[in-house]
Parts: sequence; structure tokens; C-alpha cells
Amino acid sequence: MNYPNGKKRSVQLSRNLNSHKQSYSNRGMSLEEDINVTNQYYLTHDICVIHKKPTPVQIVKVDYPKRSAAVIKEAYFKQASTTDYNGLYKGHYLDFEAKETRNKTSFPLHNFHEHQIEHMKAIVKHNGIAFVIVRFKTLGKTFLLEATKLFPLWDRQYDDAGRKSIPYHYFLDNGFEIPINYPAIVDYIKIIDQLFF
Amino acid sequence: MNYPNGKKRSVQLSRNLNSHKQSYSNRGMSLEEDINVTNQYYLTHDICVIHKKPTPVQIVKVDYPKRSAAVIKEAYFKQASTTDYNGLYKGHYLDFEAKETRNKTSFPLHNFHEHQIEHMKAIVKHNGIAFVIVRFKTLGKTFLLEATKLFPLWDRQYDDAGRKSIPYHYFLDNGFEIPINYPAIVDYIKIIDQLFF
Repeated sequence: MNYPNGKKRSVQLSRNLNSHKQSYSNRGMSLEEDINVTNQYYLTHDICVIHKKPTPVQIVKVDYPKRSAAVIKEAYFKQASTTDYNGLYKGHYLDFEAKETRNKTSFPLHNFHEHQIEHMKAIVKHNGIAFVIVRFKTLGKTFLLEATKLFPLWDRQYDDAGRKSIPYHYFLDNGFEIPINYPAIVDYIKIIDQLFF
Repeated sequence: MNYPNGKKRSVQLSRNLNSHKQSYSNRGMSLEEDINVTNQYYLTHDICVIHKKPTPVQIVKVDYPKRSAAVIKEAYFKQASTTDYNGLYKGHYLDFEAKETRNKTSFPLHNFHEHQIEHMKAIVKHNGIAFVIVRFKTLGKTFLLEATKLFPLWDRQYDDAGRKSIPYHYFLDNGFEIPINYPAIVDYIKIIDQLFF
């Protein structure tokens, strides 16, 4: 696996996207929906195999009516112990979480959970590729940030003067804007290609 | 990644296990519970990062009572689009499905679903490691069978004279008995090590 030299964070790539982006930024689809469409496109075109994990639910009561499907009558949302998305690209393990915010100047860290960060740390330790996709909805900008760039900010938030959010400029400086292209809507695999392959 | 030469299917490994196996074969825990315990052990000891995916549920109705957690009041089980387990081992993507049967002479193929087989085919195509774990409960035997050894039997079942099940001896000849060791209960990573690393 080739790691990027840090010089490749191409301003050119970000700039090129502006023309495409406009037509999609106001479609009103959530980041999750966009990523699901993207993953389906990737799967159909044999680019990679990435799936969203189902929402974890604690099932308490199930009815089994005659001649029809079982009905869950009581259940509760559980906190996930991992990120939402994982899968396989060119033989490598990929793992990521996706979040959006209406904020314009920073991304609040409480959008992530401690166990998700712990999970991503384990992934990095075992040589997987971990990252987050963060969308600033109001700005119409979507970034990929490697998990290793997130960890120091996450850990520092517990210090006395620690910030509880990631400034927008941190994404500009350390992240990569994701191409918003049709038909792969949030074309994050292009960034992964640039970063790791 | 090193593929096995086929000679390594060690009878010795299977034989060694018999002494350990007896003490665990009648604990009454399901294969799923055993694998969850195993994965937790692997995670805690930094061996690999494998998680079971949550059961996919279609949520229809949710109540939000004041001052207490949201309650799902109507939901339905959905068919999974992937296998139940995936994750990361030594930088490689691992993916598997686990099933048990009370049969003594064969494993019925209807325990798997077409989309799970399709998913495992995609994993193999993208250079991931895909396999199934099958337990013959009554016999107290648990096997790992590489997905590539399952595909021909799956595809052949639709032929005129195609068998709808996998004979037990096929597991003896083509699979690997999984060590049942404490504290990793279904120590499948030992087989993966032998096969791929």
C-alpha cells in the first residue's frame, strides 16, 4: 500500500468539482442516501464491495401471526459498536463513518462516539483503511478525512483548552473534497485511489 | 497472500482437537453465541477486528415517549444482502457466514441464500477472504469451508441431478475442522492463518 506524500492534496481536484457540484447540492438527499446510491453503483460496476450496516436494534417482543410475516412489536435502538460502512476495495479493507452538519465554520466532535473512534483506531492498527466522510450541508461541501487526521483532534478535546469541534479550515488543509459526480454521487473511491493506491 | 498448496489440510490438526472438544460440545450455546465470544476475545487481544452485522430490520412505527427512550412499535425482519460477519485480519478483508444443522450426514444448501453466495463471489473477485463456518450440532463438529469450495456445489444444485445438500464427507475432504479452544471458542483464525498467511 502506498501512502501519499502529502503533496498530492490537489487543489486542482477540488476546483474542478465546482462546476459539477452545483447541480447536486440542492437535491435534498441526505448524505446517507447519497452514499447508498454510490455504493450500489460501485457494486454494480464491480469497483468495490461496500455496504452500510443495518441499524442495531434490541428486539424485545415479536408476534408471529398465522399466514403472515413476523411483526416486531417492541424494540429499542442500540448504540452501534462500529462505524456504519465497511467493505473491500482492491483487496483492502475499508471502514468509514459518514456525518453531516448544518454548521458553516466547524464540525462538532459529538457527532462521533467514543466507541466509533476506538473502532477506527483498531482498524488502523490492523492495517485497514479508515476515514470519515463529513458534509457541510449549508456550504454544499463534502470531505474525506483520514481517521489518523481525526484522532489527534478527538483526543485533544478532553484537554483543558481542547476544542470540541473541527474547524472548517482543517478539512480544507487536511481533508480532500469528494467529487460529486453522476452516477457515483459521492465519489469517495477517487480520493482513496489517490491516497492509497 | 499465500494460498495453500492443498497438502496442508492437516489431519493432525483435526485429531489434536478431539481432546479439547468434548468439554465444550454440550454447553448448549449456539454457534452464533460461540462466534460472538470468539470475536470479542480476538478483539480484546488485538488478533483481528471481526464483528457480526446487526439483524436488518425495516422500521415502520416508532413512539417517542416523554423522558424515555424511543420505542419501535412496528418493524419487520428484512433479508440480509450480505453475510453476517466481516472484518479485518492482518490487513486483509475477511467475510463469512455461519450456520448450524442437526443433520448428521449432510448440510442442506437452503441454509444459504442466493444473495449471500453472490456477495461471497464478489468478495473473492475483489481479493477478499470469504468462507463459511458450518456446525454439525449432533456430531459436535465445526468446519471452515472456503467459499470457493462452496460455489461449485451451490451452482450445481440447479442442474437436473444436482444435490440440494453438501455431504458430510465433503467437509472432511475439503474443509477444515475448527479448533474448539478456550478462551477463543471457535478458533477459526487458526485455520485462516494456515490457509492464507
